[in-house]
This record gives sequence, C-alpha cells and structure tokens, in this order.
Amino acid sequence: MSDMQGLTNHQVRLAARPNGLPGPDVWDHTTEPVGEPADGRFVVQVTHVSLDPAMRGWMNAGKSYAPPVGIGEVMRALAAGRVVASKNPGFAVGDHVTGTFGVQSYAESDGTGVQKVTPTDDVGLPTYLALLGMTGMTAYFGLFDVGALRDGETVVVSGAAGAVGSVAGQLAKIKGCRVVGIAGGPEKCAWITEELGFDAAIDYRAEDVKKALRAAAPDGIDVYFDNVGGDILDAALTRLRHGARIPICGAISTYNATEPPPGPANYMSLLVNRARMEGFLVFDYVEKFPQAANEMAGWLREGKLHSREDVVSGQVSDFGDVLLRLFRGENTGKLVLQIA
Amino acid sequence: MSDMQGLTNHQVRLAARPNGLPGPDVWDHTTEPVGEPADGRFVVQVTHVSLDPAMRGWMNAGKSYAPPVGIGEVMRALAAGRVVASKNPGFAVGDHVTGTFGVQSYAESDGTGVQKVTPTDDVGLPTYLALLGMTGMTAYFGLFDVGALRDGETVVVSGAAGAVGSVAGQLAKIKGCRVVGIAGGPEKCAWITEELGFDAAIDYRAEDVKKALRAAAPDGIDVYFDNVGGDILDAALTRLRHGARIPICGAISTYNATEPPPGPANYMSLLVNRARMEGFLVFDYVEKFPQAANEMAGWLREGKLHSREDVVSGQVSDFGDVLLRLFRGENTGKLVLQIA
Repeated sequence: MSDMQGLTNHQVRLAARPNGLPGPDVWDHTTEPVGEPADGRFVVQVTHVSLDPAMRGWMNAGKSYAPPVGIGEVMRALAAGRVVASKNPGFAVGDHVTGTFGVQSYAESDGTGVQKVTPTDDVGLPTYLALLGMTGMTAYFGLFDVGALRDGETVVVSGAAGAVGSVAGQLAKIKGCRVVGIAGGPEKCAWITEELGFDAAIDYRAEDVKKALRAAAPDGIDVYFDNVGGDILDAALTRLRHGARIPICGAISTYNATEPPPGPANYMSLLVNRARMEGFLVFDYVEKFPQAANEMAGWLREGKLHSREDVVSGQVSDFGDVLLRLFRGENTGKLVLQIA
Repeated sequence: MSDMQGLTNHQVRLAARPNGLPGPDVWDHTTEPVGEPADGRFVVQVTHVSLDPAMRGWMNAGKSYAPPVGIGEVMRALAAGRVVASKNPGFAVGDHVTGTFGVQSYAESDGTGVQKVTPTDDVGLPTYLALLGMTGMTAYFGLFDVGALRDGETVVVSGAAGAVGSVAGQLAKIKGCRVVGIAGGPEKCAWITEELGFDAAIDYRAEDVKKALRAAAPDGIDVYFDNVGGDILDAALTRLRHGARIPICGAISTYNATEPPPGPANYMSLLVNRARMEGFLVFDYVEKFPQAANEMAGWLREGKLHSREDVVSGQVSDFGDVLLRLFRGENTGKLVLQIA
C-alpha cells in the first residue's frame, strides 16, 4: 500500500497550559508524514473536529475525569472522518467513522472507541458529532437519567442555544414539559423559541435572570439542566421546586476564570427543597448508547428533533481561533471545524 | 377538672428577627395562666426542650421548609413532657409525650404529631428527643436513604460530636464502614473515637481539614454527611470518590452569618466524580419512623449505639442562653434544656 506516500499530517499540539482564555501561545502547529498503518490498525483522514467546552478542562494540569493532555501532545478532540488505509478487518477504506482522533488531519487507530456511521444527504457527518454523537448522548442521559425527568415537568436549560442545551430542551419538549432556555443574545433566544419550540427564553445578557425565571417558571423548576455554572446556577437555585434535580453537565462560565470562581451561594436551597445536584459523565452510559442513538435518530427523522451544527471551514491550524468562539458564546448549536 | 387552676405558663416568644447570633434582645418572656383543655385537647407540662440548629432558620423571615416563627409567637421547639390534663381519649394524664410543644412550660395540643413514649431508668425522656427522636431519625434516613450507604464504605461526618453527627457516625460503624468524624476541640475528638468507635477524628480548630482528610481517608470519601457547610464542605468536596453522595443535613457554620456566606467553590467535583449532593427533610420519612425507631432502640439496647444528651437544667427563660451554646459548638451530643 502506497496511498499514504507524500501525505502530511497537520497537527495542533498543546504547547503550554493556559491561564484564562487559551491564546495562540498555548498551541504548537506541527507536521508529520502520514505512515502506513501497522497490523490491526487503520488511518483516518479527519474531516470534522468537534469543539467542546470540556476541552478547556483537558488543558489543565489538575485531576479531572479524563487525564490532562500532556504538554507537547496532540490536542484531544472528538472528530469524524473517512478511513483512507486499513490493516484492520473491521474497518475498510471509505468507511466513515467518529472517534477521539485529536486535532490533526490524519489519525491512526486500532478501532478502540471508534464508531462507524453512515452519513446521508439529510444527516451529514457533523450531525454524528452533534445530536447523534456524544453531544446528544450527554443531553439524553443527563436529562432522562440524572435529571429523572417526568412528563409535564418544568425544565430550565442554561447554555440553551449550545450543542447540548439545545438538544436537552428539545428532548424535554418531546416529553411534554414546559421548557425555559437561558441563552446570550436575542438571536439565540429567538432560535430556541421559534425554531426549537422552547416555551420561553431568557437573555442573560439583557435580563435579570432571577426575575425572569420567576416570570417564566412561576411555579418553580423541577429540572435545571446546567451547562454554565456561576451566577445563572445561583439564580436557578432560588427557584427550585420540592424534589428538584440539577444535572451538572458543565460550568462554561467558569472554565476560563483566572481566580478560583465562587461556588453556588444558594446551594442550601437543596436542603430546603429536598433537591439534588448531581454530576455525570456520558461515558458511564456507553452500553446504552446504541438504544439512545436509535431513539434520537427516530425523533430526528420525524422532525421532532432538530440538529444544528455551526460548521466553520478552515485548516487544522485554525482550531485555536475557533475554540475561542465557543468560550465567547459565539456559536449557535454544535461548533464544528470542517477541515478544508 | 380544676388541676390547672393557679398554674402559670412561662413562655419564650420571638420578639425580633436576629441579625447574626441571636442575642437577648430577640426574645420576650411572657406568662399566661394555664387553661383547661377544650374537648379533644390536652395539656402537656413540658419538662425537656430540644435545642436544634434548625431553630436558627425558623427565626428568619425567609422561605424555608417550615414557615418562619412569627414575631410575637412562642418559639417553635420539639419537646418532651407529661400530660397533666386531657379531654382527648387518646391521651391520659400521666402519659409521657414528645411533640412540637414550643419553648414554654405548658402546651395545649390536639395530639397532631404527638408521640407517646415510655421512658425507663435506662432510657430517659431526653433520649426520645435525641437518638430515638427526630435527631436519630435524621441521622438514619440521611445516611441510609439519601446517603445510600453501602457496607464497608468510607464515611466522613462533620459536626461529628453533635446530636445528629454522633449518631450518623455510629450507624455507619454498625454497617462496617470506615468512619472519620470532624469536630471542634480535642475533647470532642477523643469522645467520638474512644467512646463511639469512630476510626479517626479531625479537629477542625487545630488541623488543616483538607490535609487531614487526605491522611484519614486516603482512598477518598464515599459518603460525606454534612452538618456544617462552609470551608469543611469545600474541603470534603476535594476528596470525593466516584459516585460519592453528600446528604446535606445542615450548615451550622453559616446560620449566623451577617453577610451571605459563599457557596462551595469546589462543587464541580460533583461533575468530575459523578457525585451528588442532596438535601432532605426528616419529616418526609414520617411513615417509616416506627420501623427505624425500633431498629435504633434495638441497637441502643445491644450497646451498639450510644445516646449522649447534654442536659442543661434551668428555667424556660434560660432558652436563649442555652441556644447560644449550640451555635458556639459548646455542646457534646444532643443539647436539651430540662425545665426545673
């Protein structure tokens, strides 16, 4: 096999641990020749890189649910692409796949954690990084399992125009819930109410969230699906109903803080309202992924779920700039870097 | 019936809402003649008043799980006493009872929420306010239900020499757990390890709690039973194991704060460790009280559980002073005012 000859793998490596927002100085851009895969392995040409808030945590030295990305290592990333060379009987040249391929144009794999997917005209590869990928699974298990959602409850979602939040809100609508989304800016708010069917939207940049929650969820909150932490979490805590559940999916408002961010001052609302706040990791549900993905795909076909990908076309080396869009809240839906 | 003639009911009423520690100015001392009970009602001579951290919350105007005590009202309190007049067929003169009788020397009741108890030489009335009362029930359901304790886990209890904490730690020992108690001062620490059988004690006044937890629970914490909130909660959050549970029983370190206390800055440990923090109210378990009380009484008889009551003899009017002992951490075990 000589397909690989002359191909160059462009990579983004972590050069330094960021303090605050990750600027250009934290990245190294490197190139390597693409080699032939060893026995049992295959090479993927990466076409789409997923940009996720969790990436910020992987860049820190501290203990997290995943080990930190080492200095000098290719930045970890979920991605999608096409097999271009294979010595693994389970994967053939031309197969479309998703996996943790990293921020690079070619990745070698032994198939661990790699999913074969079948993109169509209607449902493209980016959707397999979004609604039908980890993003959708995170919304699904966070809401249904950790959130223990019951039909007809009142659900509030923060980061509601983001990748996970927009799916979580739609899932709650499918279950007949009243759904309030919190997002930044009038366009995002219009999108979640007009396109996604949320019952109400709160623009946290323009409104007093606590007051707005009182108006939008006058009987209180049964499930608060939290993607942002910070002041918005604290506001939601003041509006819990008895027995409320708070799945903690993320805290993007705090990820780039240079001082330790304060905790949720109103956490004692958990006691007063016999409520709970619970973290989760989507990988703990891996055995249930196929069933959930099937259900999600069905809802997608029926038009009950909409997947929106905010696809930025560029080079591998644009990764750092695109990542900043995520932390500045400039994306609507799932942010994906499509490698030109 | 003329038994009541000439008897005087001494009462402590809430005169003003405290800012910080409740000083003498927040109490009014009043007297009333004791009347004959109406049909269906009875009169209890209160002999023992329970002093509980939750009282501080009842004194605030804000929403809590129980309505605030109104200005001018008799201060709410669990208490024990003896029926001295009755027009209720369910309660006879001489019966010993516990109930929410308030801080007063005589209380009238229709029997709602009142328990008949049978004190003996071994197990006196104060124990029915402690291990065999709400205190014990709180430890039992907080640890076993909310904490979902499994045999052999590592349990950390704060306020470990307090009424609830000392019981929670002993219950965990009965289940074969490694139990670490956090308490203030060498005497309390000695009591929980030497008398109650805790595996280790941390004196939060003398030690760096985070470091001490690393030494005392080197593999991390499965259940952190929190009575105190504040810095100790934050320290415990840094030491959680995967799947850890934090029953929130109280936050006595913050109850008398004059500024809004900060929240637990390390709450994102819940996400990293797929852990949960959950509030609860013992009254939600009322239907299961008899079964739990039986089990606790059995362990008490077998010597597996020890109940310690810190009984202060005095007048009804001493209530305010005795309450301050609680908030200064001067009690060991259950603080009770015995009315002379």
